[in-house]
Amino acid sequence: MSLKKVGIVGATGYTGSELVRLLAFHPNVKIEAISSESYAGEAFSAVHPFFKNIIDITLIPLEELLKKDLDIVFLALPHGVSMEVVKKLGDRNIRIIDLSGDFRLNDAATYESWYKKTHTFREGFEKAVYGLPELFGEAIAKASLIANPGCYPTSAILALAPLIAEKIVAPEHIIIDSKSGTTGTGVKAKPVNHFSSVNENFKAYGLKYHRHTIEIEQVLSKSISASVQVQFTPHLLPIDRGILSTVYAKPRVLFRASELRSIYNNFYKNQPFIRLLDTPPAVKQVRGSNFCDLYFTYDERTRTIIVLSAIDNLMKGAAGQAVHNMNLMLDFPATAGLQLIPIHP
Amino acid sequence: MSLKKVGIVGATGYTGSELVRLLAFHPNVKIEAISSESYAGEAFSAVHPFFKNIIDITLIPLEELLKKDLDIVFLALPHGVSMEVVKKLGDRNIRIIDLSGDFRLNDAATYESWYKKTHTFREGFEKAVYGLPELFGEAIAKASLIANPGCYPTSAILALAPLIAEKIVAPEHIIIDSKSGTTGTGVKAKPVNHFSSVNENFKAYGLKYHRHTIEIEQVLSKSISASVQVQFTPHLLPIDRGILSTVYAKPRVLFRASELRSIYNNFYKNQPFIRLLDTPPAVKQVRGSNFCDLYFTYDERTRTIIVLSAIDNLMKGAAGQAVHNMNLMLDFPATAGLQLIPIHP
Amino acid sequence: MSLKKVGIVGATGYTGSELVRLLAFHPNVKIEAISSESYAGEAFSAVHPFFKNIIDITLIPLEELLKKDLDIVFLALPHGVSMEVVKKLGDRNIRIIDLSGDFRLNDAATYESWYKKTHTFREGFEKAVYGLPELFGEAIAKASLIANPGCYPTSAILALAPLIAEKIVAPEHIIIDSKSGTTGTGVKAKPVNHFSSVNENFKAYGLKYHRHTIEIEQVLSKSISASVQVQFTPHLLPIDRGILSTVYAKPRVLFRASELRSIYNNFYKNQPFIRLLDTPPAVKQVRGSNFCDLYFTYDERTRTIIVLSAIDNLMKGAAGQAVHNMNLMLDFPATAGLQLIPIHP
Amino acid sequence: MSLKKVGIVGATGYTGSELVRLLAFHPNVKIEAISSESYAGEAFSAVHPFFKNIIDITLIPLEELLKKDLDIVFLALPHGVSMEVVKKLGDRNIRIIDLSGDFRLNDAATYESWYKKTHTFREGFEKAVYGLPELFGEAIAKASLIANPGCYPTSAILALAPLIAEKIVAPEHIIIDSKSGTTGTGVKAKPVNHFSSVNENFKAYGLKYHRHTIEIEQVLSKSISASVQVQFTPHLLPIDRGILSTVYAKPRVLFRASELRSIYNNFYKNQPFIRLLDTPPAVKQVRGSNFCDLYFTYDERTRTIIVLSAIDNLMKGAAGQAVHNMNLMLDFPATAGLQLIPIHP
Repeated sequence: MSLKKVGIVGATGYTGSELVRLLAFHPNVKIEAISSESYAGEAFSAVHPFFKNIIDITLIPLEELLKKDLDIVFLALPHGVSMEVVKKLGDRNIRIIDLSGDFRLNDAATYESWYKKTHTFREGFEKAVYGLPELFGEAIAKASLIANPGCYPTSAILALAPLIAEKIVAPEHIIIDSKSGTTGTGVKAKPVNHFSSVNENFKAYGLKYHRHTIEIEQVLSKSISASVQVQFTPHLLPIDRGILSTVYAKPRVLFRASELRSIYNNFYKNQPFIRLLDTPPAVKQVRGSNFCDLYFTYDERTRTIIVLSAIDNLMKGAAGQAVHNMNLMLDFPATAGLQLIPIHP
Repeated sequence: MSLKKVGIVGATGYTGSELVRLLAFHPNVKIEAISSESYAGEAFSAVHPFFKNIIDITLIPLEELLKKDLDIVFLALPHGVSMEVVKKLGDRNIRIIDLSGDFRLNDAATYESWYKKTHTFREGFEKAVYGLPELFGEAIAKASLIANPGCYPTSAILALAPLIAEKIVAPEHIIIDSKSGTTGTGVKAKPVNHFSSVNENFKAYGLKYHRHTIEIEQVLSKSISASVQVQFTPHLLPIDRGILSTVYAKPRVLFRASELRSIYNNFYKNQPFIRLLDTPPAVKQVRGSNFCDLYFTYDERTRTIIVLSAIDNLMKGAAGQAVHNMNLMLDFPATAGLQLIPIHP
Repeated sequence: MSLKKVGIVGATGYTGSELVRLLAFHPNVKIEAISSESYAGEAFSAVHPFFKNIIDITLIPLEELLKKDLDIVFLALPHGVSMEVVKKLGDRNIRIIDLSGDFRLNDAATYESWYKKTHTFREGFEKAVYGLPELFGEAIAKASLIANPGCYPTSAILALAPLIAEKIVAPEHIIIDSKSGTTGTGVKAKPVNHFSSVNENFKAYGLKYHRHTIEIEQVLSKSISASVQVQFTPHLLPIDRGILSTVYAKPRVLFRASELRSIYNNFYKNQPFIRLLDTPPAVKQVRGSNFCDLYFTYDERTRTIIVLSAIDNLMKGAAGQAVHNMNLMLDFPATAGLQLIPIHP
Repeated sequence: MSLKKVGIVGATGYTGSELVRLLAFHPNVKIEAISSESYAGEAFSAVHPFFKNIIDITLIPLEELLKKDLDIVFLALPHGVSMEVVKKLGDRNIRIIDLSGDFRLNDAATYESWYKKTHTFREGFEKAVYGLPELFGEAIAKASLIANPGCYPTSAILALAPLIAEKIVAPEHIIIDSKSGTTGTGVKAKPVNHFSSVNENFKAYGLKYHRHTIEIEQVLSKSISASVQVQFTPHLLPIDRGILSTVYAKPRVLFRASELRSIYNNFYKNQPFIRLLDTPPAVKQVRGSNFCDLYFTYDERTRTIIVLSAIDNLMKGAAGQAVHNMNLMLDFPATAGLQLIPIHP
């Protein structure tokens, strides 16, 4: 079978380089072009020296990439910028996986309210499919535009989806206390990711109003009639990669704890990237891989269900999930290019 | 005024060496003796080389320390061991600050249930005073035996005490999601504190049954008639020092968010080690100091109060608080020996 | 072509699990058995949870592994233990790659002097080939027993070999100042790898007498008539993986700096895992990969050649190099199973 | 005795805040004013929140600070900027401790050659005294302008000074391989100090041409007639604070190793901040303190002297040394305000 042609728009960030890491040796695709406005003309490995002698392809401007014959394109761009490229690609027959937040919410109005930004391609929402394969696999396979989920939402939704879908928990009173590695702040040097401000430190941020709150609520609400409300609090960990979410939910009245295991087992049957653990997960045990490790328990004393989920924010929380989506869209094996064992230690 | 004579029992752990760091230049006391069974005969600075040329005092066995003329003694021992020393000291006129968990709970029965260990000095509970100065300052000043609080409980109780005492929140439905540095696992090398098992990692542990759960509940319950129930989940941070607790509580019906600030201001008036912040605290900003940094906010959307507290687990969570207790007991200024500015970065 | 059958002796350490990571998806081999005395009967993924759902094979005792039909066996054992297994395997037609230090030196006498241990299989030295593919590729291909190089020697020898072989530098007066990540101390919890003793710390150790000194000297001496003498000083870095060696050497009289590049280029021509850089290497840029990144420069002011080399100590410094050796021995492509892009960040 | 009045110019960097940490509770001085151009009008603790409730003094512009009645002023400014302030202060009777590199070298010509910058106050070199108390204590006491040493030079010079002064080593062929924590890169967010570029990483930089090379050479040359030449290579450690220098030097012909200890003992007799160790130093054991920990050994096999030195780059490498200089200048006890025990862990 001939290799499918892939383009990557936005090469300088962590998501872009992680996509290249996954696609470079993917058995079914060929990286046809990588674009960058700021580094056009330079080698990809000049921007990311760890790729030297592996991927030395020359970066080209977006306009040039758009002229290529491509089967699928990944957009590794900031939100706001991404929607413009989706608009440009509008009439081309190229499938799109957008890793930004531009098409993750239900509609432009909600987007504008939470992102404090005007949406310039409202039509995109009609065809955009939320790219969480464990929940929306069938729609993803047919989609022309994928809104690749946020990192925190991936970790939180996978923890909660079985409980919400099976109506096990009250959809309000859900606490999601999340902790993320520093790559979540992006590749650009800023006070927030200065080594000495992160190292030996730990703090919460984005209380009450983080954009991922509404993303989590909307996706979880889709599976039931009632609307889901969550309290989402992100924290910054002094590590590179990894998100751990600690989720607290109150069971409905007739809950039987003994059913928890079968609920999760059934919900995630045949899902290659979900691992149900017998002990609390650790972020290092998924590092560099596309796994989401889940652990759930019930505290009878307090009548509370606790779910823990661990992902690598650049993999299952971004590039790995994007490649999983591509595999579904192009009818490749789900794990193609993603059989990566966690790096430990 | 002549210097008071201090003894320290247990010199090899982090708490022991931190006590020496604080007492070495304390203006009102003199370190008279430091005991260690395993290192008796060696210099304190041979066990802790960073004290070289500062505190080179020779370690002596406990039995020898007990013969010294001491005004006050700190027990930096594991729980279970500490109660035996308290028993031995029983009839001596030496005031005791016990940094273990042996006398923190209300009674021996509760201790035995949560610590899975027989208590061999039940009489101790009668005179033991819980050494949290911001709540029990008057009782501490007169106490002969101080049960120095646990690190997690200090961080959680200081976050919640004003809300509980003023009956602002429902005493059940309280979530305490805590994250601690690795010094909390002790100085002894164990798989849990192997560098490569902690570094670049993050995980929860002790779910549902951690001993600090009951300590938090009992202390908070003292201030109101109803009993307080909390969900306490500790996590292990890849840093040396620091605890951040993220606390979620539901306000009672007639709550007015605008009152939060005055409630905290009044409750902690004139408390030199409580800092009320306008932005979420960071553990690095209290490192090496005895401060507890607090931040509170109310989310109208979800009707939830969120409180964040940051302490250095070896300072406000152990040795610093112990010295604060000593200052109150011996009528020194509250901040004597504790005017330590956080080390940043 | 049918898959070759591989056995791994010693599964609990970092080297063992790294070998499994590389061999699990290696296109030409099948992991037939993994042995462990202490964990026999347990799943490999119970010992290394990050392998869950990937490699769940049950661990067996060595005696049972020896009964299997194997083409090649990796010994991931401590020195002293390894020689016993080599002796046992002696008359079997199984090729051996020993990752310990037991057969790296020229003879048993030198071993006993530097390792302070009696060697119990002196015959092994006769057939052992030092498994550094860039220097001894042809001998490796035909070898029945490979002494897989030490991590520090790999980094130091690759930096120096072209200069020594081409008689560019004086073979005495060579300084090798090396810095290694903490996985070099092994998986067992010890004071030296306690998180708080490594984190935020840095120190030298093993001055003057580290065993890798003689390994470096003997291997480098092989290529010239004169004997090479080096000053080797290892240091412990607060990171998991990676060795950076900073090498200082004095050029001989007729040295021309302009020739340095062609010397390195020629020496490492067609070597897939050597990358010659234009800027100093960083250990993170080889992490998780089998690359050795090299940089060299000449300081005219001081008449000194400086060479920097970066490797991942568990990969090029251990398991990756072992798999490279296997590829040569079994006539697979040199890079089979080793096309791993560095994990960054 | 009335408190001396201190001014600090430049409050936003690490050196500035570390000075305030040391001077806030110094028994002999009072912080009269702190200046900042960019944050004038704001509280010092708004810029450095860890000072909240400790030092909340309002920052003022330099021009305003210059109008104050001050006994001594610390300049915590970038090089190039500092010389302008020294010029402005020229005719005022205020003693100056300049923490920049502007007056550390012998003359303006050398400065301009190594710093690639025009020097605008060449007269300053005449009165500037190099502020390394262990070598130039008497001159410091009388100086009006102190050039506070660089962090790397402090660590290297203290390691080498006894060997050079006593003519033990050949003054050429000296290798200084230094490793520094990330605070050395400054408080401003830059790619070089992005968390994910430093964390889990290690690399060399500034090979051959780092400015501290000439500073080390000039200071060491002062003590002997021959000129000293060093090979200085700095590396970046993934820690906040600390410099470890590993120094290699060749002894002259008639060297007796047994004399090393007495040479160091005599040279550093009565120096309160030098600790001579029996085992290699670790940077964490001086963290937050003004100590320089030294270890020396002789390798007979290679005829090489190895010296290791550890300092906290913000303390003995900057602010601590500056306060030590002030103590000598104003006739305070040498350790006033500097009796700080290392923070460990």
